Amino acid sequence: MSTEPKGHERGSVFHLTLRCIACGKSFPHTHRASWCTSCEAALDVEYSVPLRVQEERRDLPGIWSHRGAFPLADPEGLVSLGEGNTPSVPLPRVGAHLGLGRLYAKLEYLNPTGSFKDRGSAALASALRDIGVTEIIEDSSGNAGASIAAYAARAGLRAAVFVPETAPLAKVRQIAFYGAQVRRVPGGRQAAAQAAREASERRGIYHASHNLNPFFLEGMVSFALEVAQQFPDGLPDHILFPVGNGSLLIGAWKGLLRLREAGAVRRLPRLYAVQGRRVQPLVAAFHNKPWQAPERAHTVAGGIAVTQPPRLRQALAVLRDSGGSAVAVAERDILAWQKALAVGEGIFCEPTSAAAFAGLEALVQRGLIGHEESVLVPVTGFGLKDRVPAARSS
Amino acid sequence: MSTEPKGHERGSVFHLTLRCIACGKSFPHTHRASWCTSCEAALDVEYSVPLRVQEERRDLPGIWSHRGAFPLADPEGLVSLGEGNTPSVPLPRVGAHLGLGRLYAKLEYLNPTGSFKDRGSAALASALRDIGVTEIIEDSSGNAGASIAAYAARAGLRAAVFVPETAPLAKVRQIAFYGAQVRRVPGGRQAAAQAAREASERRGIYHASHNLNPFFLEGMVSFALEVAQQFPDGLPDHILFPVGNGSLLIGAWKGLLRLREAGAVRRLPRLYAVQGRRVQPLVAAFHNKPWQAPERAHTVAGGIAVTQPPRLRQALAVLRDSGGSAVAVAERDILAWQKALAVGEGIFCEPTSAAAFAGLEALVQRGLIGHEESVLVPVTGFGLKDRVPAARSS
Repeated sequence: MSTEPKGHERGSVFHLTLRCIACGKSFPHTHRASWCTSCEAALDVEYSVPLRVQEERRDLPGIWSHRGAFPLADPEGLVSLGEGNTPSVPLPRVGAHLGLGRLYAKLEYLNPTGSFKDRGSAALASALRDIGVTEIIEDSSGNAGASIAAYAARAGLRAAVFVPETAPLAKVRQIAFYGAQVRRVPGGRQAAAQAAREASERRGIYHASHNLNPFFLEGMVSFALEVAQQFPDGLPDHILFPVGNGSLLIGAWKGLLRLREAGAVRRLPRLYAVQGRRVQPLVAAFHNKPWQAPERAHTVAGGIAVTQPPRLRQALAVLRDSGGSAVAVAERDILAWQKALAVGEGIFCEPTSAAAFAGLEALVQRGLIGHEESVLVPVTGFGLKDRVPAARSS
Repeated sequence: MSTEPKGHERGSVFHLTLRCIACGKSFPHTHRASWCTSCEAALDVEYSVPLRVQEERRDLPGIWSHRGAFPLADPEGLVSLGEGNTPSVPLPRVGAHLGLGRLYAKLEYLNPTGSFKDRGSAALASALRDIGVTEIIEDSSGNAGASIAAYAARAGLRAAVFVPETAPLAKVRQIAFYGAQVRRVPGGRQAAAQAAREASERRGIYHASHNLNPFFLEGMVSFALEVAQQFPDGLPDHILFPVGNGSLLIGAWKGLLRLREAGAVRRLPRLYAVQGRRVQPLVAAFHNKPWQAPERAHTVAGGIAVTQPPRLRQALAVLRDSGGSAVAVAERDILAWQKALAVGEGIFCEPTSAAAFAGLEALVQRGLIGHEESVLVPVTGFGLKDRVPAARSS
């Protein structure tokens, strides 16, 4: 490892343990891997102190204003670029089109690197600084890579990001611009992950794999706490997420459960996952249907094209426990909704984000979401992050 | 005009008048031009009611949470995409490099279309809806065009944006994606403005020229009110702005004066303008030096390449009244600072925004800004809005 862990004497994070989501084995917070080194599954954070869920720390930056609900790192070492606290706005025109009187969007693209991933990266960078990590390796083909590169820069961590050689040039350039070392790997997404893993083991560097890492996931808890603040008269009846690795879905549910435990809310929303038809492992699993990953998963919704999400069972449990569902949508509907949001509401998002609205339309049509009910959709990534479609394409 | 003004009977905006910044002539708030129709100069908003500067309306969206300080439109017709309330974050690494212990950035690029212009567009769209305008023409080559296109979509206004044929393709595509009609005009920026003016007159459509319009400017007042909230222990000693038309500089000063009048703050910051060396009408005027607009003003800082800013005298007055100054910076320093912010702090901005940091360095070197003093710099536009530089360019 790049430096020795500073251990418990730092004092701030005595109270947290990392637990494997599959075999249940626990590790100290200073554990030098993003996964369970016994069975290779992802990890979750567990606290042994009571959480102060309703505390608002307006003196702390970004997601740390909700720190009481996830006391993740030493107050001295908190890393932030002012992420979180994104606005929730009504969508009157899109709502009218769908027959929904209370439809809202939470503009998660208004995060420092242009996507919701910054919640996770702020948490990750803070926790790593706390345990004395000074250098990281990450694998990503897009938003998570840019986000982790930015927060690594902010935290003074050296970072290398392994990307598949097919990764979009604009996203690769954003990653590199933050000063991270970019390593292009021949082959697809899994090959990049494997190369990152090998380099990490060979060189003894922390592999901050965002889809396995417990700290990254924990940052997403902040989403739910903000929703509770922004809807003081009652949480939305339904929240829809575009889901690749599912970190926002799973993290939001963690936050909602903590709010209920603390007595801050009673009834929780139903949570839904939306995926593209070409890459829909979670939707297939939810409906007990077979699904085979395609050789090459070309899709406009690259942000959710994750063929083997390591937190699949966790995501499934969230959908079932909350009483939600999962739906897959067509490429053309994703693009049509991207345009409809821009023209109808002035919101310019990535295709990946628009998928959630295509899913919403399907769920309303199937009667799973009623016209009198309230709905919230996070708009997860900025339209500027993809190639902007040509003027006359729609 | 596209519809008849609804007049004073709407009741909400009885209390505001538009006044010419040059000849002093006043017009009712229903005035159907963005400028003085007597002498062609820009207009300012004046209120005949006391302003409730310190009121915080957390129930109202975006910049309207400060509505008491600029009661611009009917509460029923407020247009918002959750703009404003952007985070202010410390810049420890850049600060250390400059020898400044208290350097902060206000991340204005975290606005709904990726730039500070959204403050102005929210105000403009709200005021226009109030006076019954349903269709607008705008001229822009960049961020203002995208911002006004988005807010026109949000407000249900038809919009046509006239752009010079040399405008960057990505920005033109963003404008068009919001559903605005894009008209490419042969020639430069002035030709686009002239074409917009002629089309407006010919077709009787409101020309929402953002560099002349009083409502657009008024939205910028919100910037100062947020700074006062975010720095409760005392405003920063210095605020530096990259200046093209100067709307943020001038609007921020208006807000600061209102705060002082209300007794909310005592000592005001010094305000500074930074321009690129190739287009520096304000810097030249401030230092009483001759300056000739180049035939073609190629610069990496396109957002501040305004050769004839119509509010030049207002901007000059702000610099003098606040005790600030003006400085011009080199192209290479702008690009070096864009990279330094990304690598040093994880903040990826447009070159235009980075110009302010190049200016800060110069002002520190000249001793105009002392090492013990506190400094705030708005980061006005997202790096994703420009072509992202290639990985190995820096």
